[in-house]
Amino acid sequence: MTQMEDAKKGVITDEMLYIANREGISPDKLRKLVAKGYTVIFRNKVHDWVKPVAVGSGVRVKVNANIGTSRDIINVEEEIEKAKVAVKYGADTIMDLSTGGDLDEIRRKIMKAVDVPIGTVPIYQAAEEMLAKGKAIIEMTEDDMWRAIEKHFKDGVDFATVHVGVTKEVVEKMKRIKRVVGMVSRGGTFLAAWILHWNQENPLYKDYDYLLELAKEYDVVLSLGDGLRPGGLPDAGDELQIAELYTLGRLVKRARKAGVQTMVEGPGHVPIDQIPAQIKLMKVATDNAPVYVLGPLVTDIFPGYDHIAGAIGGAIAALNGADFLCYVTPAEHLGLPNVEHVREGVIAAKLAAHAVNLLRFEDEYRKDYEMSLARGNLNWARQFEIAFDKDKFIEIRKERPTKTEACSMCGDLCAIKIIQEMLTKKQTS
Amino acid sequence: MTQMEDAKKGVITDEMLYIANREGISPDKLRKLVAKGYTVIFRNKVHDWVKPVAVGSGVRVKVNANIGTSRDIINVEEEIEKAKVAVKYGADTIMDLSTGGDLDEIRRKIMKAVDVPIGTVPIYQAAEEMLAKGKAIIEMTEDDMWRAIEKHFKDGVDFATVHVGVTKEVVEKMKRIKRVVGMVSRGGTFLAAWILHWNQENPLYKDYDYLLELAKEYDVVLSLGDGLRPGGLPDAGDELQIAELYTLGRLVKRARKAGVQTMVEGPGHVPIDQIPAQIKLMKVATDNAPVYVLGPLVTDIFPGYDHIAGAIGGAIAALNGADFLCYVTPAEHLGLPNVEHVREGVIAAKLAAHAVNLLRFEDEYRKDYEMSLARGNLNWARQFEIAFDKDKFIEIRKERPTKTEACSMCGDLCAIKIIQEMLTKKQTS
Repeated sequence: MTQMEDAKKGVITDEMLYIANREGISPDKLRKLVAKGYTVIFRNKVHDWVKPVAVGSGVRVKVNANIGTSRDIINVEEEIEKAKVAVKYGADTIMDLSTGGDLDEIRRKIMKAVDVPIGTVPIYQAAEEMLAKGKAIIEMTEDDMWRAIEKHFKDGVDFATVHVGVTKEVVEKMKRIKRVVGMVSRGGTFLAAWILHWNQENPLYKDYDYLLELAKEYDVVLSLGDGLRPGGLPDAGDELQIAELYTLGRLVKRARKAGVQTMVEGPGHVPIDQIPAQIKLMKVATDNAPVYVLGPLVTDIFPGYDHIAGAIGGAIAALNGADFLCYVTPAEHLGLPNVEHVREGVIAAKLAAHAVNLLRFEDEYRKDYEMSLARGNLNWARQFEIAFDKDKFIEIRKERPTKTEACSMCGDLCAIKIIQEMLTKKQTS
Repeated sequence: MTQMEDAKKGVITDEMLYIANREGISPDKLRKLVAKGYTVIFRNKVHDWVKPVAVGSGVRVKVNANIGTSRDIINVEEEIEKAKVAVKYGADTIMDLSTGGDLDEIRRKIMKAVDVPIGTVPIYQAAEEMLAKGKAIIEMTEDDMWRAIEKHFKDGVDFATVHVGVTKEVVEKMKRIKRVVGMVSRGGTFLAAWILHWNQENPLYKDYDYLLELAKEYDVVLSLGDGLRPGGLPDAGDELQIAELYTLGRLVKRARKAGVQTMVEGPGHVPIDQIPAQIKLMKVATDNAPVYVLGPLVTDIFPGYDHIAGAIGGAIAALNGADFLCYVTPAEHLGLPNVEHVREGVIAAKLAAHAVNLLRFEDEYRKDYEMSLARGNLNWARQFEIAFDKDKFIEIRKERPTKTEACSMCGDLCAIKIIQEMLTKKQTS
């Protein structure tokens, strides 16, 4: 039984209880959302040591951090460190997108290193193994694809990106519809190239029922990948992107009938004024599937600062219904992130998510309230306690010290200090 | 004659021509906006070496960087370095908010070091000089205030914050209306404390006509300060803030009649879903005065990352009509920023402004288009050329190198590379 099947039958699972408690919502409300597919629970049946996490309607906006080796940079210890740092700074889930080295070993080590749900893109492994054998990616067989998927599911990954919307039809359309950046989804591209080469349908689309069977066996959440997401502002909202979205919408509904949990991935690169409409359309096209956005980035010309471009887009997306923010690091579009990039990326995405969560959850808002109170009282110890990143708090306070009870920006001219003294004086005189 | 007076008479000044050319808009359109007061031009009559800048309707969203010494940290060379770095990274204006050391000398040195318009808060100097004399801030006389203002205007500052909305009435109201953080505007607090102590009206409000005379003489843009801006999310949109806003709205209209240019300062700390309404209200209350926002910050619990909280709020504010973004640095709420904090703050604010400017100005959008094109062609030299921060671009590319023509994240698995090869192959075969 998947969480969704249980939910449909009216059963509140241990995972639902755990999550409802963590989120501060009623278990039955959560159950209903899971039954409808509006909310998903990450908890592969064999991933015993994971702390389940829910994504979707009625629960907090979550943050995912992508880590993993590449063919250029293979350093397993660094990846494990990235996973730990990401979780330390609040990443709710980790995706291991490794494409270099012993992928099975790396994935298993990362899964052992942290207790948050893990996502992967199994087709990366199928592709990497082709290259490792000196073959071309398009030489992979359908069996190679399914083997990678099944292996990941068996290993306990809690969610997996599957580019089921990259159909033969949309790939044909790609030949006619001009784009500025083209296709930027790796997994989507492998499948598009495969489709073009063999002139055959995407196996994951053609045999979607088999994919559903596998997902059901382990209760893996299928993250329906947007292989045709825009890779630059000029491509946002084009016919290819939206055509794929409606395919994903159909596949969400088939999965729900089968009792399989799904979410839908979204852009990417989107002009800031277009974000609300895009998210709304995703919710409409997929009947309120959980929306997992990759950014979106609101500008393309700030490489090195895409975590900020992504925080702006992510906050606006979340405000308009996006449920799950994939972080973006400062290294995006430049190279594989290092540990510090991961830290910066996670914090920026957590900030964006929190800006929206505080509108919806009393305990989230309470933190901002308490911080405001501490500031109003110039209570630095309390501010430190509440600060999201305590190390950074101390670092700046130490580097730019004050001789006063305020801070080195205003010192004795601190507005809070002056007005308090005046108001107190007047009231007691 | 001020720019506004000329504009009203149908005269297109040299400054209007210069700005219209820089903005790529028609000089007469700009003239009309300046005549109405919807757009202001920063150009003190005696600030000969300044490159004029316009803020308001019909022109690009601009970014200001606050620099200046404090009583704790007085390092004039560092402040000059901050000014230069801010301008290097695209700050359109600089505010010198120095409150430590020889304020006249510092201000003049900063003004000589850069050619962008300079803003100040003259009352800081009046307050600092009290403390330097061993007196209390509230001991300053009305003459002390006017002397500081006139000195700054004579020195050539192009815009100056004046807390004319901190009236006796609103200060009385402050005693009754509870706030979590209280008052966080330094200049506003000096005046509120003064009003409470002497039980007299704010001199800048009482003698607003005299202030207008002074501003007119030098054509200084009055930046009507929001002394009662919220200092934390819980205080956003409260009665004090909005009462002051409507006072400022009245004063904008009086200034326009006198031919004096004004803009209005806005929050501060605002929950993300409240920002559009706040900006709209500011435009309504002030009959479309240029809106100068200080952030707004969308969360309070991320000290060390307020440049990101401010970029999110600033982008949303700009999208909804804010014209001028005051940057926020990572040191905000912790201490006086250093040079690196200034750099990070400027870039985050420029990114936010650009995300909106690209929707409105073809040449701004063109940069994102060209970057997308360069990415689609894996043209790294061109990407480098367009990148906002070229040093950062190189730094990350060097630290995380690739052996391929792509980047170290995907290497041979680069989506763009694969799909291009496939599509080309298919088309040529």
